[in-house]
Amino acid sequence: MILPPDPQVRLTTLTNGLRVVSERMDHLATASVGIWIAAGARHEHRDEHGLAHLIEHMAFKGTDSRSARQIAEEIENVGGDLNAETTAEVTSYFARVLGEDLPLALELIGDIVTRPAFAADELEREKQVILQEIGSYEDAPDELIFDLFMEQGFPDSVLGRPILGTPDSVMALSQASMRSFLARQYRAPAMVVAAAGAVDHEALVAQAERLFGGLSAQQPEQAVACPYHGGDMRQKRKLEQVHLVIGAEGVSFHDPLHEAMHVFAQVMGGGLSSRLFQELREKRGLCYDVHAFFTPFSDTGIFGIYGGTGAKDAGQFTSVMIDQLRQAAAQLEPAEIARAKAQIKVGMLTARESPTRRADQMARQLLAYGRVPSGQELSRRIQSVDQDSLKQAAERLLQGQPTFAVIGPHTGLPDFTRLQGDFVPL
Amino acid sequence: MILPPDPQVRLTTLTNGLRVVSERMDHLATASVGIWIAAGARHEHRDEHGLAHLIEHMAFKGTDSRSARQIAEEIENVGGDLNAETTAEVTSYFARVLGEDLPLALELIGDIVTRPAFAADELEREKQVILQEIGSYEDAPDELIFDLFMEQGFPDSVLGRPILGTPDSVMALSQASMRSFLARQYRAPAMVVAAAGAVDHEALVAQAERLFGGLSAQQPEQAVACPYHGGDMRQKRKLEQVHLVIGAEGVSFHDPLHEAMHVFAQVMGGGLSSRLFQELREKRGLCYDVHAFFTPFSDTGIFGIYGGTGAKDAGQFTSVMIDQLRQAAAQLEPAEIARAKAQIKVGMLTARESPTRRADQMARQLLAYGRVPSGQELSRRIQSVDQDSLKQAAERLLQGQPTFAVIGPHTGLPDFTRLQGDFVPL
Repeated sequence: MILPPDPQVRLTTLTNGLRVVSERMDHLATASVGIWIAAGARHEHRDEHGLAHLIEHMAFKGTDSRSARQIAEEIENVGGDLNAETTAEVTSYFARVLGEDLPLALELIGDIVTRPAFAADELEREKQVILQEIGSYEDAPDELIFDLFMEQGFPDSVLGRPILGTPDSVMALSQASMRSFLARQYRAPAMVVAAAGAVDHEALVAQAERLFGGLSAQQPEQAVACPYHGGDMRQKRKLEQVHLVIGAEGVSFHDPLHEAMHVFAQVMGGGLSSRLFQELREKRGLCYDVHAFFTPFSDTGIFGIYGGTGAKDAGQFTSVMIDQLRQAAAQLEPAEIARAKAQIKVGMLTARESPTRRADQMARQLLAYGRVPSGQELSRRIQSVDQDSLKQAAERLLQGQPTFAVIGPHTGLPDFTRLQGDFVPL
Repeated sequence: MILPPDPQVRLTTLTNGLRVVSERMDHLATASVGIWIAAGARHEHRDEHGLAHLIEHMAFKGTDSRSARQIAEEIENVGGDLNAETTAEVTSYFARVLGEDLPLALELIGDIVTRPAFAADELEREKQVILQEIGSYEDAPDELIFDLFMEQGFPDSVLGRPILGTPDSVMALSQASMRSFLARQYRAPAMVVAAAGAVDHEALVAQAERLFGGLSAQQPEQAVACPYHGGDMRQKRKLEQVHLVIGAEGVSFHDPLHEAMHVFAQVMGGGLSSRLFQELREKRGLCYDVHAFFTPFSDTGIFGIYGGTGAKDAGQFTSVMIDQLRQAAAQLEPAEIARAKAQIKVGMLTARESPTRRADQMARQLLAYGRVPSGQELSRRIQSVDQDSLKQAAERLLQGQPTFAVIGPHTGLPDFTRLQGDFVPL
């Protein structure tokens, strides 16, 4: 299966370097539009922990010409939905609206991104909201476990810190630090305006020029390297399940093994037929959720396996996880490789059929690669993954130091030295 | 804004009463297809707690002609994604695939729904998986709180029980009870096969006839009435946040006030501009998540407000929630009513543009109303909500007994008598 061509994709670069990309979908009455900025938690300085996420929140709290309530009402008056997200390397602001309201949505996004007021009273209140957000996250062990895992994988580096910050670090942030982050990171060459659905490219470009044309054309400050380390982090907590993640350093999205590592993660734990699901849930009945993930960044990546199981089974669960990883690294069947590729390709096609996911996909591709690869190219790249590249990808995982993170009432887990000893090629 | 017409919706009723509905979306390469059955947790007998959900799990565990692994591999070989869901009144099995693979997906769904093997060894293992699922749910207070709320709202009735069952009730279920539930509930008049996307209606009907034409044409057993009661349930737990829901009996999806109650929930807590979000998060900084919900059933409904806040603020939080509810019941502004209607209509349109959500929408409309209302009709129904009907809807909520559910390190909450006293019209 080859993904269809995309003749409707249009890309324009403004004079200051900001890129505008769109894909018109003639049959849709709605559109998604937003701005994606290559500035995330890892662009924070040491003393700015939680700043990228705080700025994302504060964008909604008023601009030079609109109050927080006006922002909310203007977009929702037309039935629109405005949202934002902060990840390690990207902050995005996006909306879903009727096609005719796309200019209104982009106008609001332009206002909150380029002219936030950062009012002192709103800042103090919003810090309280973020403390509540941190609290709700603390109460969700199946989310929190991924923060512990990253913290142990990339200790003493901005990539290993929770994106939300800590209560202390958030309380210490100031209006001045927000202004300084915006000035050095929210720069045109690091920005993509993307839209998909009922969109007119020329109008989009003209509006983007008006809203963002005055932004600095200088390159933003680059993120510092975040060396992977690995290790062991176990948190005892009274819970029904032991939540655990085991993994290792992955590769960046520029790495030749990038596609192979995606396919390997899919084979390991990407669906009902995956090795981990079959072995740990179907054959042994030890869990409800088990899955593998691979998250590439610009210069490194992380691969892991998550599972939740009962306290008494946690030891067996961990051993089987590692055993499955070693077996897959040693030998994969042609049928499961073909199946994983089909799943990834149909998944990409499904995403391309949703305007929200399509705008997100194109924007992130531009930030990562400087271009929007065609469907045919992406299909070919996935299709070219073979036994050799899969073996290389798996060996990369098993060569390094593992990372192990656990939350829950765990007992009977192997100690880390034992686990390191097992985490090697067969 | 009026939703567009839907000339591509096609509906056929088989001789045995099973309905087949489709909407072709010419521009899509993928399709969603599934079966929706008006048989859920509330169709269980007293001693069958967890049975509807167990059957949904066991459907994947092998049929007369396929093993669990074969089912998983057949759908994933073509990159498809097969899933299922059990709610109070509906169980659904559905897949997303390339259009050319829709017949394969429906073939598998037909097999797992009409010819499950329910093998004894698979049953014992799957019970363990469900115990793990219950455990993971117990560890998620922001999900568990809704079960407590339903339990207190509809005590001593099947609608108030957790859909997953309890460890004891699940362990007590047998192959015989599964067979008996299937025989009395999985009947053609209670079933809808629905597809949206790259689908050919005639081929879909012919295949549905082949797969499901032999099912009983008799009406399934009807669910018994589940009287709403209300009351107070507080669970102390060491958490960062107090998670709480306060609400009351809503109306059924047949009730003339159904649309008004949706609009009222949207005004109260449906978006960034909603009353609860503005008051509790924006103005007071007391929470990260606060929202209102209205879930209608066939003969009753439930309305509630969820929020998560710090232990020391839980009392104030609860008082403000109730105060906001009373104020909204007394008086709504024309601008906020218009905004809520726009949000609901654009939300419906967005759902109609996704094949997965569109198939689900049409199937549930057929099960609820026996027909698929046109976009124009739905728009008109929302548009016709006015001050009068909103006032009636709000008074319905405040007339009855409230339900209050809390999990967390709560202190300083009003006692239930006080709360009942406040939960009345201004």
